[in-house]
Amino acid sequence: MNKPLILVTNDDGITAPGIRKLMEIAKQLGEIVVVAPDSPQSGQGHAITIEQPLRLKKVHIFDDVSSWECSGTPVDCVKLAKNVLLKDRKIDLCVSGINHGSNSSLNIIYSGTMSAAMEAAVENIPSVGFSLLDYSFDADFDQAEPYIRQIMEYVLQNRFEPYTLLNVNIPKLSKDEIQGVRVCRQAKARWIEDYMEAKDPRGQSYYWLTGKFVNEDEGVDTDVFALENGYISVVPAQYDLTFYEQINNFKQLETINP
Amino acid sequence: MNKPLILVTNDDGITAPGIRKLMEIAKQLGEIVVVAPDSPQSGQGHAITIEQPLRLKKVHIFDDVSSWECSGTPVDCVKLAKNVLLKDRKIDLCVSGINHGSNSSLNIIYSGTMSAAMEAAVENIPSVGFSLLDYSFDADFDQAEPYIRQIMEYVLQNRFEPYTLLNVNIPKLSKDEIQGVRVCRQAKARWIEDYMEAKDPRGQSYYWLTGKFVNEDEGVDTDVFALENGYISVVPAQYDLTFYEQINNFKQLETINP
Repeated sequence: MNKPLILVTNDDGITAPGIRKLMEIAKQLGEIVVVAPDSPQSGQGHAITIEQPLRLKKVHIFDDVSSWECSGTPVDCVKLAKNVLLKDRKIDLCVSGINHGSNSSLNIIYSGTMSAAMEAAVENIPSVGFSLLDYSFDADFDQAEPYIRQIMEYVLQNRFEPYTLLNVNIPKLSKDEIQGVRVCRQAKARWIEDYMEAKDPRGQSYYWLTGKFVNEDEGVDTDVFALENGYISVVPAQYDLTFYEQINNFKQLETINP
Repeated sequence: MNKPLILVTNDDGITAPGIRKLMEIAKQLGEIVVVAPDSPQSGQGHAITIEQPLRLKKVHIFDDVSSWECSGTPVDCVKLAKNVLLKDRKIDLCVSGINHGSNSSLNIIYSGTMSAAMEAAVENIPSVGFSLLDYSFDADFDQAEPYIRQIMEYVLQNRFEPYTLLNVNIPKLSKDEIQGVRVCRQAKARWIEDYMEAKDPRGQSYYWLTGKFVNEDEGVDTDVFALENGYISVVPAQYDLTFYEQINNFKQLETINP
């Protein structure tokens, strides 16, 4: 049997410890191709590069792994992998991350890690984004390794609904403290934002985004609740943004007459 | 009665004809504040600026309109308007566009115009993104003006479901040819993508995104169908990406044991 073909990407770049760990795990399960941004792309959301050409540069990470740096966004990485590097091959799985920091709740819409996974879903490639709730470079990814491997095995071995992705977040806990896995919905949490305002050396104002994540969603079936209670959260996600329940409520707009 | 406060933004920058038309319409309905990017931001999706400071520069467009250029993305524009420029005020409506080009179907996830509208929805500001299916600088926005004004009036005068936005696309037709308005779901269409590959003056390869929009969704209730039949499409949208129907199908992941 052929080994499955696994595309690995992220938004922190190819030298981040998180993607190194993901490559190590994916290497055990299939043939892997790595395409990651050549600069940090956190918060890039679903940005794509239209007005500029893109570059791909072959790099060496592991002896038996084809690895590329891309000058674009995480979504560009997936598009170039699908349409240029792996044009004539079927990609069996795309994994993105492991992100250094949470992508739970509405963070999915801002996250480069999750947007890469979503772009794979748009291309009907089963895909999973992984994030650890630890922003530090020295974050310990080992405790999550068996979970990540088994989630990837599950996706490779089972029928996967088309145009679907999984958003997996891992609490910052030791192996013994992790309580298991919960399949959840996205919490209705939000950021209370603020901008640090300061003056540059020429006396001109600048603004730097800061903020506090607040969860006012009291549901016990949310990703934020699972994480707060020591579980790894898995949210099945998709990219049809239609608010179906609201279609009828807006029907009055059909009476507009110029 | 106080005039409603309307935030106007886009992704093409403050000098684009589309936003000029939107300002003209919004000026008739309320007090407007304009915050638009200082460089083209098409395809920026839900990108936010984290690693850099942001600038706001006051500019003059109309005598009685407060206008600002922002060094960031469309989403940054909305965040700065909400949290800095209009910090102590209630924004009654956010309008984004008029985009030069379609944002129907899955284009909503790539679009800077729609991501700005979505960020306003995240902040619970009623919001609408407008796009005209004409990429040219000389696009004629006049025929759509009565529709755009009436959609804005409707949103200002009626209860608007929290955390909701409208994605409005306008066909490239004359006033007589436009058939009216249809409230729709997002079509399950996609891009068949390709990259133009070429060599730079130093002989190095580069890649430039190109592609063809294909609609394989045969539904007659979609935005693409409405547009193809001469209607203005209105899709109510939201940003909870949870694939609710799939939560139970993935419950087996809860049995993972390291």
